Amino acid sequence: MSTATNEAIEVGNQLVALCSQGQNLEAINTLYADNIVSVEVMDCPEMNMPQTMEGIEAIRGKNQWWAENHEVHSGNCIGPFPHGDQFIVIFDYDVTNKPSGQRCQMQEAGLFTVAGGKIVKEEFFYEMPSK
Amino acid sequence: MSTATNEAIEVGNQLVALCSQGQNLEAINTLYADNIVSVEVMDCPEMNMPQTMEGIEAIRGKNQWWAENHEVHSGNCIGPFPHGDQFIVIFDYDVTNKPSGQRCQMQEAGLFTVAGGKIVKEEFFYEMPSK
Repeated sequence: MSTATNEAIEVGNQLVALCSQGQNLEAINTLYADNIVSVEVMDCPEMNMPQTMEGIEAIRGKNQWWAENHEVHSGNCIGPFPHGDQFIVIFDYDVTNKPSGQRCQMQEAGLFTVAGGKIVKEEFFYEMPSK
Repeated sequence: MSTATNEAIEVGNQLVALCSQGQNLEAINTLYADNIVSVEVMDCPEMNMPQTMEGIEAIRGKNQWWAENHEVHSGNCIGPFPHGDQFIVIFDYDVTNKPSGQRCQMQEAGLFTVAGGKIVKEEFFYEMPSK
């Protein structure tokens, strides 16, 4: 009889608590493994960001790029939804992209994998804006 | 440059459209592969349902058990959130469990994998009620 691991539930709850307060960098610093793998839906040549990035420094860089280029009007998290050593969180953001000045409501799902008490993989699910 | 496949987006949209109207059995009949694999967070000995079930007949049986044992007051789907050949949908239900008479609000995430234009795997993510 399998179930969600306690560490997946605990890490998921901590991630939601921090991200709900906009403390995304704190979440990376405290909950992410050094060898974290981060997978987007596609790569972003304009930002020199491949679809898959590895290592906590690269993920801190991605977070810094996000923080510098977006004004977050409000953010909300739904979850975590645990299953085995994974959990899903829905992120809901109302942001203005600073370079373009365009304000938009974004919603994406994150699928997180936990090992040794840390997040070792994050995969983001969302519809591309052009759709 | 990878992205969500068109078939994942299309099947996801169809699943959300049908499930939002309560047409879950129709979704199984039209969108699921014969060899569908369905994975819950844990098995359910009381219902004789293992964590992992295979084959469309078994999944129809699970759907029938759900329909017979729950009165659905309202249902809502958020998504789909696509990524590669997968997509995530959040299901929001206000139901009364008929045997116990207990009404509750349930929320769970489904992670679906698409191949050959059909859903070949569904994995459900949720917190156990006892937590």
